[in-house]
Amino acid sequence: MGLIHIAGRDDPRVDDFRDLSTADRRPDRPGGKGLVIAEGTVVVSRLLASRYPVRALLGVERRFAELADDLAGRDVPQYAASAETMADVVGFHLNRGILAVADRPAPLTVSDVVANAGTVAVLEGVGDHENLGALFRNAAALGVGGVLLGPGCSDPLYRRSVRVSMGHVLRVPFGYLTDWPGGLDDLRARGFAVAAFTPRPGSVPLRELRAHAPGRVALLFGAEGPGLTETALAAADHAVRIPMPAGVDSLNIATAAAVAFYELARAD
Amino acid sequence: MGLIHIAGRDDPRVDDFRDLSTADRRPDRPGGKGLVIAEGTVVVSRLLASRYPVRALLGVERRFAELADDLAGRDVPQYAASAETMADVVGFHLNRGILAVADRPAPLTVSDVVANAGTVAVLEGVGDHENLGALFRNAAALGVGGVLLGPGCSDPLYRRSVRVSMGHVLRVPFGYLTDWPGGLDDLRARGFAVAAFTPRPGSVPLRELRAHAPGRVALLFGAEGPGLTETALAAADHAVRIPMPAGVDSLNIATAAAVAFYELARAD
Repeated sequence: MGLIHIAGRDDPRVDDFRDLSTADRRPDRPGGKGLVIAEGTVVVSRLLASRYPVRALLGVERRFAELADDLAGRDVPQYAASAETMADVVGFHLNRGILAVADRPAPLTVSDVVANAGTVAVLEGVGDHENLGALFRNAAALGVGGVLLGPGCSDPLYRRSVRVSMGHVLRVPFGYLTDWPGGLDDLRARGFAVAAFTPRPGSVPLRELRAHAPGRVALLFGAEGPGLTETALAAADHAVRIPMPAGVDSLNIATAAAVAFYELARAD
Repeated sequence: MGLIHIAGRDDPRVDDFRDLSTADRRPDRPGGKGLVIAEGTVVVSRLLASRYPVRALLGVERRFAELADDLAGRDVPQYAASAETMADVVGFHLNRGILAVADRPAPLTVSDVVANAGTVAVLEGVGDHENLGALFRNAAALGVGGVLLGPGCSDPLYRRSVRVSMGHVLRVPFGYLTDWPGGLDDLRARGFAVAAFTPRPGSVPLRELRAHAPGRVALLFGAEGPGLTETALAAADHAVRIPMPAGVDSLNIATAAAVAFYELARAD
C-alpha cells in the first residue's frame, strides 16, 4: 500500500490524528477516543509489531522510508504530509516526524499476563504517566514478564506513557487486578510470592529476597511519596527494602523497580 | 532573623528571584547569573545544610514555618510574599511555595571529590538536565561517593537538575575532569579501576564486574543513544554491560547508573 498525500489540515482521512492532546484520553473521559498513539519511528515500529490493531500512520515522507521493512505487506493507510500540515492536524509541533494510531484491543486477563512470567510487577496508586512508562521500559530491559495494575494507577496507554516506555508498554503484557487486595491472593494461588516494597523497619534487604522467595515473585510497588497502603502491605508475603544511607528519600518508583528487576533477574 | 514581608513585585530586595527562567543560567550564558536555585521545602532544606552560600529565601509564610529548624540561628534574609506576588517576581507560577538562592562556591577538585569514595560515577556527554539530576539522586540513594563530569555534560546546578536530584546535587560531591581522557589515568593513579558501560559484544556482565575490580571503581557512562566515545572506551580498564533481552534499547542513563550503583554497593 503506497503513500497517500495529504495536502491540507481539513482532510477527513486524518481525523484520527486531530487534536492529539485529547484524542488519546480514555473513552470514558471528556473528548477521549481511547486511541493508542505511537510517536517516532522506534515506537511506531513496535506498535506495528504488536497485537494492537493499527488504524493509520501519518508522517513526513522520509520517515516512511525508514519504516519500509515494518510496513511491507501491511494493509494500513499511510498518510504523508508536510511537517506544517502535520502540526496543523495534530494541534502542536511534533519533532519525531511520524505517528501511528491503533485501537485498544481487549485487556489481557491476569492469566494471560502471568502465563510465561517468573517475575511480575504489581502497582498500586502509580498515577504518574511518565513513571508508569519508564517502569514498562525497565520491565522490558530487565526481563520482567508482566505488569498488573491495581487501584489508582493511570492509563499506561496514554500517549506520554507510550512515549516514555519507548513503546514497551505495547510489548510487555499488562492487565488489571480489579479485586483489591484479593487479586494478590489470586497471584499467590498461581504460585507467586508477593513482595511489597517499603522502607519500614523490619523489611528484608532486597539482596536477601531470593532466599525467602526462590520461585515466582510478584513485586508490589506503591506511588513515590505515600507508598503502599496498609491494605496492600498486609496482603503481601514479604516486606522488602532497597538499603539506603540515612537522610536520603526513596528512589523514583521506576528506578526502584529497575533495581528490583535487576536483582531478581540476576538470581534466575 | 524574622520574616520580611514583600508587598509588590518591584521590590529590589527580591531581585535574585526575578525571571528565574534565565537567572540560573551559568554566568557565561546570555542573561545568566549562575545562581543556584532550590525549590520546595525538601530541596531548600538540603541547600541550607550544604556548603553553598545561601543569599536569600522567598516563600509563602507557612513554608517558612516548616523550615523553622533549618533556619534557626541562620543569618539569611527570609522574604515572605503571597503566592501571586511570588509568581509575579519569578515569572511563572510555582506550586512549591518556597525558593532559596545561593552563590556557586568554587568547584571541588578531583582530589576532594574522590577523597572518601569507594565508587564514583564519571560522565561523558550527558547533556540532559533531568537525567543528570536523576543520576545524582540515585548516587545519593545508593551510596556512590562522587560524580566527575567529563566533556559535553550539562550544568548539574541548573534549576531543573537541582529539582530532579531532590537537592542531592548539593550533597553528592562533584567536579570536572578537564583533561580528557587523561583524567581517567589520574583516577587510575588514585587506585580506581575504570569500568566503561557499553552494550558492545565482549563486555563483562555487570554482575561479574566485582570479580575483575575488587577495589575502588570509577563507573563511566555516556549519553543515552550515542553512548561513550571510542576515546573514552579505549581509556577504560573494563567494558561492562547490563544484560538485556534482544530487541530492547538500553536503559535510561540514570536508571542504568542506579542498577550499577546498586550492584557495586551490594558487593561492598
